[in-house]
Amino acid sequence: MKSKHEKVLSCVAAFLLIASAASTGVLAAQADFDQLREKYYADHPGKGKFGDLWEPIAIQKYWNPIDFYTPPDTIQGKFTRRQCVDCHLGMTPGWVHAWRDSAHGNLDGIRNLDPEDSRFYKKAELERIEAHLASRGVLQAGEQLDEVGCIDCHGGVGMDALEHHTELRMPDRAACGVCHLQQFAEAESEKEQTWPQGQWPQGHPSHAVDWKANVHTAVWAAMPQREVAQGCDMCHYQQNKCDGCHTRHSFSAAEARMPEACATCHNGVDHNEWENYMLSKHGVIYATTGKMNWDFEVPLKDAMTKGGYTAPTCVWCHAEFEGEFTHNLVRKVRWGFNPTPAIADNLRHPWFEERKDSWVRTCSNCHSARFARDWLDTADKGTIQGLEVEQEAKKIVQALYDEGLMVGQKDNRPAPPAPEADAPGAFFALFWAKDNNPSLVDRIHADMWEHDLIKHYKGLFHMNPGGFTYTEGWSELLKRYTEIQNENTRIREMDALRKEVEMLKSQR
Amino acid sequence: MKSKHEKVLSCVAAFLLIASAASTGVLAAQADFDQLREKYYADHPGKGKFGDLWEPIAIQKYWNPIDFYTPPDTIQGKFTRRQCVDCHLGMTPGWVHAWRDSAHGNLDGIRNLDPEDSRFYKKAELERIEAHLASRGVLQAGEQLDEVGCIDCHGGVGMDALEHHTELRMPDRAACGVCHLQQFAEAESEKEQTWPQGQWPQGHPSHAVDWKANVHTAVWAAMPQREVAQGCDMCHYQQNKCDGCHTRHSFSAAEARMPEACATCHNGVDHNEWENYMLSKHGVIYATTGKMNWDFEVPLKDAMTKGGYTAPTCVWCHAEFEGEFTHNLVRKVRWGFNPTPAIADNLRHPWFEERKDSWVRTCSNCHSARFARDWLDTADKGTIQGLEVEQEAKKIVQALYDEGLMVGQKDNRPAPPAPEADAPGAFFALFWAKDNNPSLVDRIHADMWEHDLIKHYKGLFHMNPGGFTYTEGWSELLKRYTEIQNENTRIREMDALRKEVEMLKSQR
Amino acid sequence: MKSKHEKVLSCVAAFLLIASAASTGVLAAQADFDQLREKYYADHPGKGKFGDLWEPIAIQKYWNPIDFYTPPDTIQGKFTRRQCVDCHLGMTPGWVHAWRDSAHGNLDGIRNLDPEDSRFYKKAELERIEAHLASRGVLQAGEQLDEVGCIDCHGGVGMDALEHHTELRMPDRAACGVCHLQQFAEAESEKEQTWPQGQWPQGHPSHAVDWKANVHTAVWAAMPQREVAQGCDMCHYQQNKCDGCHTRHSFSAAEARMPEACATCHNGVDHNEWENYMLSKHGVIYATTGKMNWDFEVPLKDAMTKGGYTAPTCVWCHAEFEGEFTHNLVRKVRWGFNPTPAIADNLRHPWFEERKDSWVRTCSNCHSARFARDWLDTADKGTIQGLEVEQEAKKIVQALYDEGLMVGQKDNRPAPPAPEADAPGAFFALFWAKDNNPSLVDRIHADMWEHDLIKHYKGLFHMNPGGFTYTEGWSELLKRYTEIQNENTRIREMDALRKEVEMLKSQR
Repeated sequence: MKSKHEKVLSCVAAFLLIASAASTGVLAAQADFDQLREKYYADHPGKGKFGDLWEPIAIQKYWNPIDFYTPPDTIQGKFTRRQCVDCHLGMTPGWVHAWRDSAHGNLDGIRNLDPEDSRFYKKAELERIEAHLASRGVLQAGEQLDEVGCIDCHGGVGMDALEHHTELRMPDRAACGVCHLQQFAEAESEKEQTWPQGQWPQGHPSHAVDWKANVHTAVWAAMPQREVAQGCDMCHYQQNKCDGCHTRHSFSAAEARMPEACATCHNGVDHNEWENYMLSKHGVIYATTGKMNWDFEVPLKDAMTKGGYTAPTCVWCHAEFEGEFTHNLVRKVRWGFNPTPAIADNLRHPWFEERKDSWVRTCSNCHSARFARDWLDTADKGTIQGLEVEQEAKKIVQALYDEGLMVGQKDNRPAPPAPEADAPGAFFALFWAKDNNPSLVDRIHADMWEHDLIKHYKGLFHMNPGGFTYTEGWSELLKRYTEIQNENTRIREMDALRKEVEMLKSQR
Repeated sequence: MKSKHEKVLSCVAAFLLIASAASTGVLAAQADFDQLREKYYADHPGKGKFGDLWEPIAIQKYWNPIDFYTPPDTIQGKFTRRQCVDCHLGMTPGWVHAWRDSAHGNLDGIRNLDPEDSRFYKKAELERIEAHLASRGVLQAGEQLDEVGCIDCHGGVGMDALEHHTELRMPDRAACGVCHLQQFAEAESEKEQTWPQGQWPQGHPSHAVDWKANVHTAVWAAMPQREVAQGCDMCHYQQNKCDGCHTRHSFSAAEARMPEACATCHNGVDHNEWENYMLSKHGVIYATTGKMNWDFEVPLKDAMTKGGYTAPTCVWCHAEFEGEFTHNLVRKVRWGFNPTPAIADNLRHPWFEERKDSWVRTCSNCHSARFARDWLDTADKGTIQGLEVEQEAKKIVQALYDEGLMVGQKDNRPAPPAPEADAPGAFFALFWAKDNNPSLVDRIHADMWEHDLIKHYKGLFHMNPGGFTYTEGWSELLKRYTEIQNENTRIREMDALRKEVEMLKSQR
Repeated sequence: MKSKHEKVLSCVAAFLLIASAASTGVLAAQADFDQLREKYYADHPGKGKFGDLWEPIAIQKYWNPIDFYTPPDTIQGKFTRRQCVDCHLGMTPGWVHAWRDSAHGNLDGIRNLDPEDSRFYKKAELERIEAHLASRGVLQAGEQLDEVGCIDCHGGVGMDALEHHTELRMPDRAACGVCHLQQFAEAESEKEQTWPQGQWPQGHPSHAVDWKANVHTAVWAAMPQREVAQGCDMCHYQQNKCDGCHTRHSFSAAEARMPEACATCHNGVDHNEWENYMLSKHGVIYATTGKMNWDFEVPLKDAMTKGGYTAPTCVWCHAEFEGEFTHNLVRKVRWGFNPTPAIADNLRHPWFEERKDSWVRTCSNCHSARFARDWLDTADKGTIQGLEVEQEAKKIVQALYDEGLMVGQKDNRPAPPAPEADAPGAFFALFWAKDNNPSLVDRIHADMWEHDLIKHYKGLFHMNPGGFTYTEGWSELLKRYTEIQNENTRIREMDALRKEVEMLKSQR
């Protein structure tokens, strides 16, 4: 499997080799991490191309600390590692307790694990981290870390004391990556994804560029309601931080292995993976059997053999690629959150076929390859059937717009705020409205392609029957189609009648 | 209770006697099982009456293996019982691990259970199965089963080796029934249900005829989108297989006793039992207390005494009938998934009254009989109140159709594909659409009777207050009624105005 | 913290002092309880001001036993404490088993708890209760309670026998309060809340006046469908009974500490706290880590230190006030379930500012005060942004109504039944409809202010990003706004055209 692994990675930038090397036990050199970190910041868009149009509000310093965070000026002075804990135990006890019970707060607990313990693998991980820190001069050769305390993440690994009002920082991906180098490299490797026909820009869709996707969304930058807009950031910050999956201050690996960990972002109208998983038989087995009996402390590679898993979880399928499990979750992405003709028309391209083959191998862990392929074929075709309904509706909406027949279009359709531009059935219709922009059919069509079609395909690929037949998906797509057809006919009948009355008036 | 039991069953065909006999310890003879199996296949509709109109797609061989399954031709050769396991442990490890940890993979574990173990009842069940298999010549008298391995279900019980490309089969109900005779007989007995005023055909609604219901649904057969249509099969296959509730390859009884086991099929727009249960106080107690503390390994009859249940689960109520628990889940069905005048007008008929009495006895396990009856009366009346709203809307929609006033009806309403036929507010409106068929009011009315009214009644009977007041049910029914009234008025106003303009034109 | 506590409570009636006193170990005198009970009944509205317009149906005796409950006449005779249990063990075994396993059925179990047991605090609670009962003459000084049996709650504490057909009662808050005096006093203290600008009447919104809110709702009293209307009672009965949170017959404190306990009432279209919590990171930590690992038997004050909580639950935040945890859950209420200009325009008032400060202190248990305040500011502003959309829609709907342009308004808009009165976009539109009342825009606007705006604000304050950006909240508000704008334009275009045709007709 090594050769395939290497082949797939052939186009990946140098830093990925770190991950590969680390996985074979060779330690990454200091230069590798520095290069990875440098690239991380170089790739980061900051406020992005529309940055002149909006100002960050106070809460956004927590979603993008790289650009917006400054320490509070309410606490002055230099505090030691021990003082951090002592003072915050009184001030903010919840996070201190969470940390104390975590691996970070119990490194000796990790070192003393019994080989039979499902967390035993963390012992070797800790030794790799310590060797890496020694290579960077943070530790002496052979020196052990005492703990990972507040100051190590919020100041710098190994610091003794910190000027609270000047040196305090909110940890970003690179801060975690100082110790968790391999995971950082894996997660960053999501950026290497390129699409064969340019369906998405490089790296999209992935966690590694989700902040970029956020700030480069025109309506997000355009919205005057910054307090609503920042709600998007609350998921689109994985590019900035690691605590979206490993919630502070436990930073638990087991937590991120459980399906609920994905739920905050992967639910709802525009990508309801959570609901689909939980209503699929996979989710049912998790709910009935897994939640109480599976061991989520075992690493994913041992989930079925040692962890007792009898069904997959979110990350089991999505972190897996050709038998390996990494923090790159997009190596098998095909429909990419948005079924479009540009994807549907190219599914025979090797890029798509090879990823489908990889999925067949994933599913074959528990299903016959024939079943897996039959299902994936079914899901592809079912997705295309939904796409056809949406595309037919799109034509109707476009025609109304082109003919100037949208309700209120002639005299009551203001342009959306910059950098948005008017268009029928556009994405902005979901987040901005004024007078008759959007009109009803604009909005319905936007719901169709951004919500119903996506739910349809997500229901199919997650094997939730109600998710693509009637509760969500197909039946909802038809409802929107019906609404658009009905509105179209009535708009045109009204237009015709108005013209007849005009004719009568002119003939008086 | 014996005499009542016998009385209720008086109309049930001979095979049910097997179940009754088995429950008193008498072994079913070989002839009984053969008769039961013969009837099972004789009853099975195969492709059904619309079978000429559609061809099965590849995935459907798994939903209805009886008619569509053929072994893969990629694997040639004859393999032994042991080879199945060895090879699949490498090829498809997930299912092998699940099986190994299951009762099927650990028959000795069952035999050695401590009498205090909540699964101890399985020991006697295993002995009954072995005696039954001995009576069929599969085992020698007194011989024990070593295991229930791949080959026993996918070939035949007791086979030594199997020609993979010719003999491999996907197990159907009868395959499970070879060993689980009583459960098979109980499940099949759902077919015996007949309605006093012909509200449903015999056996409907039940798991035992759900495939028949599927293939005899006109729009299902009519839909050109077979990949979407097969989504219906994903629930409507209980007639074919047993793994809808006891998911392969654990085939756990405990799993099927947990509410989530029902969720994949019993959720969503057309019958949201899952949501209603979980939001009722029954579900809340399950979620807060039951999930971690109740023992789902105990048989249902001991759930409250030995299992610690302090609230009912889905199957506890629905498998129960007059104090007995069986795999026939429809013996207390009254409103049958679809409140109609044909049911509402006959609730005083003894058939309905007796079933209500049975419900009162069910609820009386934890509630006073007075409370139970008061609630069931409330739920009946509340359901009828919802029905009245739907029926009033139906008249409006029918009148528009009869008068040719539906939007687009005169020139843009194509007939649905065969075997469907056009009608106002029809079921097909939920799954097929083209041009102005359905019109908006068709679709809204279809949503009303197929979704909102059913959710209203399900909310009432599952005691979820939001399920029949505002979140689902009543308030949604009123919203649809409001939409239909609004559309009706505007359509008629437009029609009147158009006629006035025509008049003016004719008077020029 | 004592002085602040006292200051906040300065306006609270005498009975609250009982709670305060009890919490410092001083026993409440008999007179205090009698006064508290007397006030409880004096405050209770019974059938309320619209009582002449409706008659209770049978099931309502269970929702409001104070006014409607009478013992069943099917059971005659006097039964002893022991006979209650013996007979009901056969008749209604479920509730007897639940009780037997509860604290009520195992007082010795409480007395013998190990000091390390998380329930150990109940031992002192039991001693307080016994001392209180002794002060009331129910027990001898130093006498212990043997049990809390059926008869103690359904007859009176310490009764030996009960006339079933005359003396049986359904326990109300006061019945529980005989023993649980402090909790009763705390819960009743919710009534003391007054709003600085009269946004709500005294005590609203709170559990302590929820039955009053119910019967004083005009459309509730007006609805002819009493079986649907009583569904509102199923949540709005906390004023009457305690088993809404501590479900009978376990009456578990641990149950009420778990988030699911709140779900039956706090879900759905009009206040979806449950969904928002579960999809927030708070809920995710509960689901992944808390459900299996936290100890819900510890009292809330020890949740993080001894119970292992790493995130808050519903009651942890809402029962907390300035570091104390009580049964008064509304001491930090600010937006009060319904964002209106009357609240939005007064947020700088000290009443609102002080409550916000209290929230900052709550959140500071796990977050920095700066983060907490930044978030609360964001949520306030985001709520106001949603309110602005709703208010703009309201003006459009009001104008249509004032101009008589609502669809069907001139000849097909019947008045709602008394005591309701017609108004545009009114609350009654959600529960009553006839002909063109409500019209579509009425209903849409009612959905906006009663559902979408509330979900928007609940999503913000519970930190569920999808709950106030796209799945619920903002995007839905814009959809309703789009619908209203579209309908408004078309109604006015139709009206203009009709006038032109009238003109043409008059000119013939």
